Amino acid sequence: MTYIAELIGVGTELLLGQTANTDAQMLSQGLSALGIGVYHHTVVGDNPERLKDAVHHARGRANIIITTGGLGPTYDDMTKKTVAEAFGKELVLDPHSEARIRGYFAESGRTMTENNLQQAMIPVGATAIDNYFGTAPGVLFQEGDTHVVMLPGPPRECTPMFHNQVMPYLAGLSHGCIHSRSLRIFGMGESAVETLLRDTMEESQNPTLAPYAKVGEVELRITAKAETVEEAEALIVPMEEYVRSVVGDKIYGADVNSLEEVVLAQLKEQGLTLGTAESCTGGLLAKRITDLSGASAVFMGGMVTYSNQMKIQLLDVDATLLDTYGAVSPEVAQEMAKGARLRLGCDLAVATTGVAGPDSDDRGNPVGLVYVALSTKDGTYVEKTHMGGGRDRVRTIAASHGLDMVRRHLEGKL
Amino acid sequence: MTYIAELIGVGTELLLGQTANTDAQMLSQGLSALGIGVYHHTVVGDNPERLKDAVHHARGRANIIITTGGLGPTYDDMTKKTVAEAFGKELVLDPHSEARIRGYFAESGRTMTENNLQQAMIPVGATAIDNYFGTAPGVLFQEGDTHVVMLPGPPRECTPMFHNQVMPYLAGLSHGCIHSRSLRIFGMGESAVETLLRDTMEESQNPTLAPYAKVGEVELRITAKAETVEEAEALIVPMEEYVRSVVGDKIYGADVNSLEEVVLAQLKEQGLTLGTAESCTGGLLAKRITDLSGASAVFMGGMVTYSNQMKIQLLDVDATLLDTYGAVSPEVAQEMAKGARLRLGCDLAVATTGVAGPDSDDRGNPVGLVYVALSTKDGTYVEKTHMGGGRDRVRTIAASHGLDMVRRHLEGKL
Repeated sequence: MTYIAELIGVGTELLLGQTANTDAQMLSQGLSALGIGVYHHTVVGDNPERLKDAVHHARGRANIIITTGGLGPTYDDMTKKTVAEAFGKELVLDPHSEARIRGYFAESGRTMTENNLQQAMIPVGATAIDNYFGTAPGVLFQEGDTHVVMLPGPPRECTPMFHNQVMPYLAGLSHGCIHSRSLRIFGMGESAVETLLRDTMEESQNPTLAPYAKVGEVELRITAKAETVEEAEALIVPMEEYVRSVVGDKIYGADVNSLEEVVLAQLKEQGLTLGTAESCTGGLLAKRITDLSGASAVFMGGMVTYSNQMKIQLLDVDATLLDTYGAVSPEVAQEMAKGARLRLGCDLAVATTGVAGPDSDDRGNPVGLVYVALSTKDGTYVEKTHMGGGRDRVRTIAASHGLDMVRRHLEGKL
Repeated sequence: MTYIAELIGVGTELLLGQTANTDAQMLSQGLSALGIGVYHHTVVGDNPERLKDAVHHARGRANIIITTGGLGPTYDDMTKKTVAEAFGKELVLDPHSEARIRGYFAESGRTMTENNLQQAMIPVGATAIDNYFGTAPGVLFQEGDTHVVMLPGPPRECTPMFHNQVMPYLAGLSHGCIHSRSLRIFGMGESAVETLLRDTMEESQNPTLAPYAKVGEVELRITAKAETVEEAEALIVPMEEYVRSVVGDKIYGADVNSLEEVVLAQLKEQGLTLGTAESCTGGLLAKRITDLSGASAVFMGGMVTYSNQMKIQLLDVDATLLDTYGAVSPEVAQEMAKGARLRLGCDLAVATTGVAGPDSDDRGNPVGLVYVALSTKDGTYVEKTHMGGGRDRVRTIAASHGLDMVRRHLEGKL
């Protein structure tokens, strides 16, 4: 049997744009990993008629229907009632869920209002899915060939419930798999990558090759369909080799989440420590490194030196260099990196100085111009980069550039 | 005439979960601001049949149809062709768009491949919408009472095109308005806010009052419908006064984007400077402050001191304090803040030290325990906070707590 899933997000806050439908993204990723196709996402408000209509459409074109949202205790949470009606079912109290909800309130020392028990009502014949991160349980039932899953809306409840409790159930239904390899590229734009690989992208069937642009990065995803992961992997390997032969060293990692993850792993492996000196990135570089648990093993610390005075005082940048070349200059970037390395006593230090915008600096340096330097005990490197797209983008790419310089240095490619 | 908009996102990357449908959120916000109702969001893949079907459904229940995605030059960009067919229209080359696309390539010094001209094809009788952030123009046409808008998918192209070129067009169609006031709260959970205001939330009709949970924050949104902004505002004022009388000083701002925005404005107004000393937040606090342009006027700089050694060396924390109380202690938090204030020469300095997780520290301090200190020339304050929810959440709330301490100090409420 072929399984097709359809996602229905329920909540007026989605239609008003107060929240983005990130649940749909998370669910789609999981379903794709299971080899279950998704052809439609729908969002409706807290409106029984339109939800019933959406369920009706979904029944006609999918055999797995997953709703998110509308399971809570308040008056506008009407997903269970409406979906049950659409399938001609009554709601009954689930004693296990009732006990869990009462326990949840008792444990947190709060008084439970009676409307909270509405959350323990589930359609006749359905199974409640325990919620370990909130009070509203999920619901699962099968009607004919159709599987219906109702999940809570808040991502911190929805995500673990789907990953830990629903995916194993769905994995039992589906056969075959979709398996992917993600290659991450920094330092080459999407159009440049496409130009190199356009023919392959258009012609490839299994595996497919597709690009996804991220801020300052490109992800190339190779996706194969097969009976087993091993067979899919065998289809992926030659495509990966071809892509690597074309794109080369700008690929910074495979199946990784970020540049910082790659850099942290390399630093640990080589037993080296890192420090930062940031002007235009203002703490973003340190923040991205310390986003990762375990960063303390290799990250010594950093300075955010927004003013010239701080560059002199905290990083020993020569005042005459600042006067002669200005803060946004290769000379100052190098001094900042060197100063940070010596002051922090680390093996490597990265520095950023540039114009994040929205205005050019007082020397007329344009928005988006950034110098990134890396100091090592054998010398200091500096690179100039220039990007458009606004303050956030400039800062993000400048920080990525710093991380990528560390990576290239550690790989002997700088 | 009542206007109802329906949004159709086009792109297999949305169905695979590779990107979230943030365009739908942005469009919904804009439409809501214009008083145009949105009852459905739909997402389909790069599949002409399913897109045609979605357009068909949308025509039956909305009179403004906005598509996002699928306007680019590659083989899977088929939105214009498909939507044109759904309305029985042919595509023709738009000479103005052709000239713009050729100019775009000439300016950037890249060679234009012929498939790029596909982007200059628009339905007969339609208007091209110039794209100032990419090559693919948008499209606008009216057929009977139905208005159709096609926008590019990348948010950095879609957002400015919608705000600057499409919203004025739509504003001309609609009468009446929806006007909102957003009150932002830090330091009180969503359930606590709901408990205080539940009756009002359930009973209010115009204006309505609704809560939205953000990481460690709650947003309360008061929304009124009226003929004019002034009339809507008159409905909002008494509700805002009531909410403020109930929630009090935990409301940090109205119609603001973030705590950092409020703090930056207050610092500027009072002519004071700020510095940071971060352990568990690892640069996030400095990063959030410097996300805002103009931060350099009040933000002197910061230190990220991840190790004890750095706390001693960069912030003059007494080594015996670290030995006696450990790095995660009120004593060390205070010393860090004071050290940063003196070293950076600023009026105020905030420090964070805590356990971001995933593991407790070597003194057995639990994950989520954070001390936040604020040093001023009149003394140093320290607060203890403890939150769950994982590393990102702990770091985000710890940084917010630091910003909120600055706010409360500047408002004389600390």
